[in-house]
Amino acid sequence: MRRSIATVCLSGTLDDKLTAAAAAGFDGIELFENDLVVSPMAPAEVRKRCADLGLSIDLYQPFRDLDSVSEGRFRNSLDRAERKFDVMAALGVHTVLVCSSVAPDAVDDDDLAAAQLTALAERADDHGMRIAYEALAWGRHVSTWDRSWRIVQRADHPALGLCLDSFHVLSREVSPAGIAGITPGKIFFLQLADAPHLSMDVLQWSRHHRLFPGQGAFDLPGFVRLVLAAGYRGPLSLEVFNDVFRQADPARTAIDAMRSLIALEDDLGIRRLPDAPELTGHAFTEFAVDGNSGPELRSALRGLGFAHTGQHRTKPVELWEQGTARIVLNSAVTQPGPAAISAFAVTSADPSRSLARAGALLAPAHPNVREPGEAELAAITAPDGTSVFVTHPGDDWRADFLPTGTAAGPGAGLLAVDHLGLAQPFDHFDEAGLFYHSVLNLDHLATEEYAAPFGLMRSRAIANPSRTVRLALTVALLRRGDWAPAVADPQHVAFTTTDIIATAAALTVPALPVPDNYYEDLAARFALTADFVAALAAHGILYDRDPSGHELLHLYTPVFGGRVFFEIVERRSHYDRFGEPNAPVRMAAQRHRRLNP
Amino acid sequence: MRRSIATVCLSGTLDDKLTAAAAAGFDGIELFENDLVVSPMAPAEVRKRCADLGLSIDLYQPFRDLDSVSEGRFRNSLDRAERKFDVMAALGVHTVLVCSSVAPDAVDDDDLAAAQLTALAERADDHGMRIAYEALAWGRHVSTWDRSWRIVQRADHPALGLCLDSFHVLSREVSPAGIAGITPGKIFFLQLADAPHLSMDVLQWSRHHRLFPGQGAFDLPGFVRLVLAAGYRGPLSLEVFNDVFRQADPARTAIDAMRSLIALEDDLGIRRLPDAPELTGHAFTEFAVDGNSGPELRSALRGLGFAHTGQHRTKPVELWEQGTARIVLNSAVTQPGPAAISAFAVTSADPSRSLARAGALLAPAHPNVREPGEAELAAITAPDGTSVFVTHPGDDWRADFLPTGTAAGPGAGLLAVDHLGLAQPFDHFDEAGLFYHSVLNLDHLATEEYAAPFGLMRSRAIANPSRTVRLALTVALLRRGDWAPAVADPQHVAFTTTDIIATAAALTVPALPVPDNYYEDLAARFALTADFVAALAAHGILYDRDPSGHELLHLYTPVFGGRVFFEIVERRSHYDRFGEPNAPVRMAAQRHRRLNP
Repeated sequence: MRRSIATVCLSGTLDDKLTAAAAAGFDGIELFENDLVVSPMAPAEVRKRCADLGLSIDLYQPFRDLDSVSEGRFRNSLDRAERKFDVMAALGVHTVLVCSSVAPDAVDDDDLAAAQLTALAERADDHGMRIAYEALAWGRHVSTWDRSWRIVQRADHPALGLCLDSFHVLSREVSPAGIAGITPGKIFFLQLADAPHLSMDVLQWSRHHRLFPGQGAFDLPGFVRLVLAAGYRGPLSLEVFNDVFRQADPARTAIDAMRSLIALEDDLGIRRLPDAPELTGHAFTEFAVDGNSGPELRSALRGLGFAHTGQHRTKPVELWEQGTARIVLNSAVTQPGPAAISAFAVTSADPSRSLARAGALLAPAHPNVREPGEAELAAITAPDGTSVFVTHPGDDWRADFLPTGTAAGPGAGLLAVDHLGLAQPFDHFDEAGLFYHSVLNLDHLATEEYAAPFGLMRSRAIANPSRTVRLALTVALLRRGDWAPAVADPQHVAFTTTDIIATAAALTVPALPVPDNYYEDLAARFALTADFVAALAAHGILYDRDPSGHELLHLYTPVFGGRVFFEIVERRSHYDRFGEPNAPVRMAAQRHRRLNP
Repeated sequence: MRRSIATVCLSGTLDDKLTAAAAAGFDGIELFENDLVVSPMAPAEVRKRCADLGLSIDLYQPFRDLDSVSEGRFRNSLDRAERKFDVMAALGVHTVLVCSSVAPDAVDDDDLAAAQLTALAERADDHGMRIAYEALAWGRHVSTWDRSWRIVQRADHPALGLCLDSFHVLSREVSPAGIAGITPGKIFFLQLADAPHLSMDVLQWSRHHRLFPGQGAFDLPGFVRLVLAAGYRGPLSLEVFNDVFRQADPARTAIDAMRSLIALEDDLGIRRLPDAPELTGHAFTEFAVDGNSGPELRSALRGLGFAHTGQHRTKPVELWEQGTARIVLNSAVTQPGPAAISAFAVTSADPSRSLARAGALLAPAHPNVREPGEAELAAITAPDGTSVFVTHPGDDWRADFLPTGTAAGPGAGLLAVDHLGLAQPFDHFDEAGLFYHSVLNLDHLATEEYAAPFGLMRSRAIANPSRTVRLALTVALLRRGDWAPAVADPQHVAFTTTDIIATAAALTVPALPVPDNYYEDLAARFALTADFVAALAAHGILYDRDPSGHELLHLYTPVFGGRVFFEIVERRSHYDRFGEPNAPVRMAAQRHRRLNP
């Protein structure tokens, strides 16, 4: 099926938008009238520009408040429509979207609506145009797909059909099941948008919070199946009003949008991607360090019980190990700055299939410089710029490292990587969720919001089904301004232990100090014994318990190298989160330590 | 009355918050439990720190889900409360806020609620504490002030009273009028928050969008009068959950908060400020220019018909005039950069009273360097850093300028300044609205949101009653990121004319090119005659019409000096806005011109 995108999804001028849509591989666009009105390109120029870019114009939109109105007003609207048909002819677009009326004085009368739409369709027909009638979820009287379909049936004109928009349909209580029974050929256009479940006015929800398919909570595949069952063969077209996308780089947004359609088509079985192989664990995490941050991180790793086991044959890169947890320190940085998680590696049952799938989903390939004889490690670049390597558990990438002679001992009892905490760039949080889900098959477990000392935060937990690969993606709810700590958004690696008390006792790096007030409150909140709380407090261990009684014990380190810290977690039974309620405690303590070193 | 602020209003750690509250002159705080829990200061240290800063702790909050629950759960809550009473004793706070239960299994039984609150009040009494019971607007069963009052009456315990929060009361349909009849002494605490009218879930509305009094749409003075009529004499305490304030500089937010209380007290007649004298017009607008932007602005002013009439006696400052519109170009900038509106001057019937009022409202005085014999011009600094001078119409500040010998002629027919367009810093948009309203008595006429090429924009029109001083305050709905034009937020001065066609013909500076598509759409939208539209198009004039038929004709110039542009407006009859629907046309055209100079 052809893939289209509404210009309103993208930021910039019309030319910015067309360029971005074409570069991402779209076949067509929905042209939003406002984008044309502010453009210096005449309609014929827009048509030519689109043709040059390989884009068709699939829909012109919208006509508003046209139906269900008084006769005088309707005649004015017909005159207006005539002018717009001329514009459409110059653009070379043949379908126009007519939204159900929201006018306060709109008349509640299906016969009137059908008669007016018929009159409009006759005019359209004279110009070789078609009318796609859409029930806005907040339409004055016509606000559900089934009512718009009854009106279109009553009008019964070949130039009049339906536009179905997943948001307008799925945000309402009316079941979409009957869509499959719509007369073939009468769905003129299909618009796709996802959205999170939000308790708010439906118009505001629609105008500010739509997302691309797979980024929200709606069942898009189920919806599209119904539309396909009704014989629809037009484009899959995205129409997403989103405050962030409106101000983000349109080239990036268009690729995110295209990825959402590719993944949706895979779900629908329209075009098959290589299946996502099962991921089996974290292979290594790489930090980029410079002359300042390197020594700090080495000292921290030593304090956590890691051993420096290997030195890369050709590069200034060190391997540190404990249990199956492996940290790579890469000093080959071109620009000095705070330490950062520059890459992480996951193991896959079939790395080449993982990478083929990633490529089909437009994940940028990470350029890897490899010396002869070195292991071939292939990577993709995540939305936050981190390189994600995909390796096989049997790959011996460690052979690229010369043994230092120091073996990894029991250390402090750290066994493996539990999760990575990756602060996301503000513009790319929803993109990242879809990226990891579609490319690596990491499921969205939950999203939490919490009040941190420097503003509200959102944290999204994603993981593979076996929970051997977990990521915590975080973002500030509003893009931060000048007032924020120097290290507002640190990154971190969390390690597992089965006995955090013993591990904590074995550490020679200090745990982040946790306030006594926290333990006082903890005892009151969870009715814990004084002994248990005292044991936690003695080691700066934090505590969380989910509604099922599963427990998390965890501790944080201070920030090292300017931007990274470590966490140690002991999950008791099936605790499946990241102790988000304790994040503000960490953030306040890290700030306190920075101000009082 | 004493003035308090909840720590949740401010960003940062507890110490950041206390410091900011004290510096802004607050007498006390409401201590939010989470702020204590993450703080390394023990309760006794917090008490001492507050005392050192001259702050009392007026309320500890909140206890949640304590009433209307099962007996077992209630006993646990009592144990929890006992621990908190000890914490409160160490803090030296005697009142705790208990919110009505939101637990899904809360019982709908006033007798049970009253009995449990009585049991809690007895425990509190033993510790010398008091319980302030508050109906959350989204409480499971108790969600209105009158129901919470019935329960408190039924409980009838001296250590149990009400907490009234303006948001929870005014966001509901229940009339607040009966508050005046509450038994004196039974309102234990008063929390104040304003909010805009929003169609959304009341909990989300409350948690994200509260504002300080005077910044929203609620009738705070009316509400407080009812509470005072019931004999309340405790603190006026602000409790504002706001996403922006949570991440803005707390020192600034605390002053904004204090200004809101000072203005409220003035409204209530509790403490009188000097009355705001009537403003009578714009005296001058000053641009800071450097060696690059100066020549560009001079050329633009000449093209607009301005004459360079005066040169400052001692400073590199030029006066340009046309009609009563006066522009000052100040080259005494310390740092080169784009041109900017560095100051503007308004005329007041009583400048010294205007400035006394401004001072009482904590408006920072602008340091003015004046040579002997020069006019005394006093100014304050607005939230965006612009200096606002207040002069008398009779002041001869122009005597500081030596005549150049060029007189101001009829120019292009510009008569006066219509308005200034001031892009506001993201963190200070609501602060600016309150600042101009309280300090200069500029009324909030309307706020509009529109989709611009680089994201959603909010524009707030403010003006004096006679409309001789108007400002358009604008801000991006989300703080902008990397993807934005170089001149995302230009500033501008708009001038009036009574014949924009003649003025446009007399200009020698080019008007900003307006797309033909705009005129094509305009004709369709407003059913204008072809001749009229052609006349507009010939000069790049834009058009708007309000629902009453009042018209605006206006044109824009390109951006000069990197960040400023000019506008010419002809208001027909009583058009009272700024042509906001045309702003996206301007923004797209300015970007187009920048990319295609």
